Amino acid sequence: MTTTAKNDSVLIDEAALSRFIALALEKVGLPASDAAQVARLMAQADAQGSDGHGVIRLPQYVRRILAGGINVRPNIRVVTERAAMAVVDGDNGMGHLVVSRAVDIAIAKAATAGVAWVGTRASNHAGPASLYARMPMDHDMIGLYFAVGNANHLPPWGGMEMLLSTNPIAAGIPAGEESPVVLDMATTVAAYGKVKAKAKRGEMMPEGWMIDRQGRPLTDPTRAEEGFLLPIGGHKGYGLALVVGLLAGTLQGAAMGREVVDFNHDDVTPTNTGQAILVIDLKAFGDPAIFKHRVDVLVQDIRGAERLPGVERIWLPGEQSGQRRRDYAATGIPVSAVLVRELNELALSLSIARLS
Amino acid sequence: MTTTAKNDSVLIDEAALSRFIALALEKVGLPASDAAQVARLMAQADAQGSDGHGVIRLPQYVRRILAGGINVRPNIRVVTERAAMAVVDGDNGMGHLVVSRAVDIAIAKAATAGVAWVGTRASNHAGPASLYARMPMDHDMIGLYFAVGNANHLPPWGGMEMLLSTNPIAAGIPAGEESPVVLDMATTVAAYGKVKAKAKRGEMMPEGWMIDRQGRPLTDPTRAEEGFLLPIGGHKGYGLALVVGLLAGTLQGAAMGREVVDFNHDDVTPTNTGQAILVIDLKAFGDPAIFKHRVDVLVQDIRGAERLPGVERIWLPGEQSGQRRRDYAATGIPVSAVLVRELNELALSLSIARLS
Repeated sequence: MTTTAKNDSVLIDEAALSRFIALALEKVGLPASDAAQVARLMAQADAQGSDGHGVIRLPQYVRRILAGGINVRPNIRVVTERAAMAVVDGDNGMGHLVVSRAVDIAIAKAATAGVAWVGTRASNHAGPASLYARMPMDHDMIGLYFAVGNANHLPPWGGMEMLLSTNPIAAGIPAGEESPVVLDMATTVAAYGKVKAKAKRGEMMPEGWMIDRQGRPLTDPTRAEEGFLLPIGGHKGYGLALVVGLLAGTLQGAAMGREVVDFNHDDVTPTNTGQAILVIDLKAFGDPAIFKHRVDVLVQDIRGAERLPGVERIWLPGEQSGQRRRDYAATGIPVSAVLVRELNELALSLSIARLS
Repeated sequence: MTTTAKNDSVLIDEAALSRFIALALEKVGLPASDAAQVARLMAQADAQGSDGHGVIRLPQYVRRILAGGINVRPNIRVVTERAAMAVVDGDNGMGHLVVSRAVDIAIAKAATAGVAWVGTRASNHAGPASLYARMPMDHDMIGLYFAVGNANHLPPWGGMEMLLSTNPIAAGIPAGEESPVVLDMATTVAAYGKVKAKAKRGEMMPEGWMIDRQGRPLTDPTRAEEGFLLPIGGHKGYGLALVVGLLAGTLQGAAMGREVVDFNHDDVTPTNTGQAILVIDLKAFGDPAIFKHRVDVLVQDIRGAERLPGVERIWLPGEQSGQRRRDYAATGIPVSAVLVRELNELALSLSIARLS
């Protein structure tokens, strides 16, 4: 089940990781089926290499649940809807449950209306955006996902007050024979989860990820709280982060701007997190097979394009995480020794079996 | 009506500019009402400072129309639809007409379904993205607009073959007392229209806009064809340009990748341009006044945020173009002397009155 990998990490298989997470969440009060669903999605995050958003978050989730900051028995419900939209109130439940419900509703509505937008409020951190953008693809649908991040690390362009988060955008676009095109990007140069993962691994950040309050490059991730993230494309990324926040947060009545709760420092206040999924049914536009074939051709044209000197391969969005998913399925998921130790301490405190 | 401004440009009022454009388009065969509608939108582009997408394009449009590359009497029609979506076939008509029709349909559908996506195919270049993202705001609706650019200037990340365009994203989000939040961004560091405008004004480009085929910075806009644009945020902007192209182009059966016609070098081949508008009806989500008040608060928090040393003001997306619109309404729109000369030559060749 577990083996030692290079770089001081331990290889753990996805099912074992999922069982461990489920056990922990059940122990702190989630119903077994909810615990299993959250655990499955968290382990999926690690299994695709989204290591800033998977099991690394478990200690924090548990701490927040024990502090009463998350409702373990939420009444997740639709509060308003039309043919092509709904708003889901998550009743402060685990974000993974709230967003999964939103995606299910959006898929059902898109099957009739052709397109549907379902947003959440009173939700919580839900892991990597691509998890949810991927879900509609099984139904020959496109998923587009927007979320408000759970801590503000981005000032407006030219400013110092961190009023914005990394507000990610994700897209899942089905292909035919090729892997789907799966984009998952923070509107900042780096997501804060990546900063935390760097710190956990004891690595430095490249210049360009963060600056300090004097505008100087900040490269030590353990000093992350002394500075702020930089948006992609300067003022453009700032504008994009703002628009994503308005769509994923403000539109649904979820937190945005000064209302955003820093869930890294506050385990109690409900975060009122907002997310939104747009689902587009390919069948409404024509024969999905034709669409998917055109995506294949485009993917192959891109992969086969002439390369800049020194570039070995041109990657499509999602191709590397897809490759990692296949690799990790064979070898197990590398989890850093530091994190394993932390998870085993958590296990001890919850009186459950150690991870490895 | 016209005065000489500094920087060797001429000030022309919006109505005069619009009349000139309409006259030219009517002369080359557009029905009067279509010519007036396109002209109004083109002049609006200049009136908000989108000088790469307004009257600067008129000589090219006229050349293409005279060459038979645009259908001046198109049968613009819905080819497929559901409650929350439609595909509009533009029959190779002027893009401004095709996209305006798409927006009207999306607004009508969103009023019932809550949200609607309307895409185009067999459309053409339609000017700045923000024109269309703004339209739903009059109905207390949000507009999100995506388009495939009309010439490929962006290679995939690491590549040299220009398979992608600047594929812009625009958003129009209503506020209450404040100006609306209007984002209009190419997924490249600079839009190609801005490169063309730099060339027309005889200015150099900053480093970071383009590189040549050896990967070196390219700063002379008259040499633009020797290099290619850079995406925002490196691989992220590449992914975003790809996703926008799949949504605005491939989804509707419009051109994408190698199918994109370079309309700067080919006046004849139908471009099969694709665009898409997503309209979200605020009324479906709750009281629009509450939403707009929350946008106001956010805008004021952002504007009032502590600033980095040396920064005089924090701008909201769309605030500067809004300011320009007000300024130009008072003073007239500055049009470069070079462009005025070109437009007057066009007038001569079409036997219509000179612009100034």
